[in-house]
Amino acid sequence: MREVFQQELREVQERLVEISELVTVAITNATEAFNESNVTLAEMVIAEDSKIDALASSLDELAINILALQQPVARDLRIVVTALRVSSSLERMGDIAEHIAQLARYRYPDKVVKKSLRQTFAEMGRLDVEIAKKLTVLLQTEDIALADEMRNDDDKIDELHVSVFDAVLGSHWKGEAVDTVDVTLASRYHERFADHAVSIAKKVQYLATGEWQGATAS
Amino acid sequence: MREVFQQELREVQERLVEISELVTVAITNATEAFNESNVTLAEMVIAEDSKIDALASSLDELAINILALQQPVARDLRIVVTALRVSSSLERMGDIAEHIAQLARYRYPDKVVKKSLRQTFAEMGRLDVEIAKKLTVLLQTEDIALADEMRNDDDKIDELHVSVFDAVLGSHWKGEAVDTVDVTLASRYHERFADHAVSIAKKVQYLATGEWQGATAS
Repeated sequence: MREVFQQELREVQERLVEISELVTVAITNATEAFNESNVTLAEMVIAEDSKIDALASSLDELAINILALQQPVARDLRIVVTALRVSSSLERMGDIAEHIAQLARYRYPDKVVKKSLRQTFAEMGRLDVEIAKKLTVLLQTEDIALADEMRNDDDKIDELHVSVFDAVLGSHWKGEAVDTVDVTLASRYHERFADHAVSIAKKVQYLATGEWQGATAS
Repeated sequence: MREVFQQELREVQERLVEISELVTVAITNATEAFNESNVTLAEMVIAEDSKIDALASSLDELAINILALQQPVARDLRIVVTALRVSSSLERMGDIAEHIAQLARYRYPDKVVKKSLRQTFAEMGRLDVEIAKKLTVLLQTEDIALADEMRNDDDKIDELHVSVFDAVLGSHWKGEAVDTVDVTLASRYHERFADHAVSIAKKVQYLATGEWQGATAS
């Protein structure tokens, strides 16, 4: 019985990592599709998102079953609770990658972003991918130093997000309303993706240390 | 001991309702501030949001303590798990109300939305308030019929959200880039607020019935 329990706990952790890996693939492909106007890649991201949703839901189910049948305590309990608290954020990160891919698909064969902002979005996308990769390693290793790095990456994304609005609201902006809408949404998606990762990192901090630091706030 | 446990469980449920009530106040004031350009009300929403964040965090802490010390089963376990799974969505709804209030504050004394779209936003705001009120009652009563009503309200909000984009991208739109940005974000906030409520309603359905229906997907 104990053996089964330990196996189930390992499975919870492995599935968290698995979902985070799929989210990393999704954001990698979505940002490439977005930046390069690659509709095939965009459609792949859109098609694959339901897999992430299903995995997150079945992870919740597994976690609840463990709580009901095994009544874990201490660190074992923290693993299960963390899974329940981060699964929906991971799922949401997958949704956001899908939204970025959808913007790429709508505008194909055009690019979503006008030339003047392409470098900014390339950099936001690169940071989102970076943050997703770090999140995966954090979930594997619980190396809390990664959470600090992720916060730094997130700060950079926030600055880029602000700079996008500065550009759009500045006197040099020549975009049509459709460009303004798309850039506004795209920038928001890139920024929210990183926010979710940082909020998950806070919750993993609780898993690793057992210390509660208001780990709800995102 | 049993007595204490039952008291703690009641407290979990009462706190969920309390947070939902504060979220309802926040969205009521935020949408009024937004529609009427009321900066005092906007600032109140912004100032009060940290209260919602703190309550959500302390509810999580209570829930985890109950899991650790009481090892609840069956319906008792479902109450605690539901609290853990919905607290962050409630907190997020509070954040969104704050974002709507921030838009009102930035544009004060102007209104955020041009005349042609004011009725649409008034209706979206009314539906968001409605959905928050229903959510509070749902958390109190577990009356699942409310979840269906909330889904209907959410469908209406989605239609209005699409109609905002149709207006902005149509040939009659005369807004500057700043109007386009604000309307895009505002519409997205109104829509996401309702999405979160619907996703919580799904999780309450699990609480009420114990039936798992992929209750993660939002």
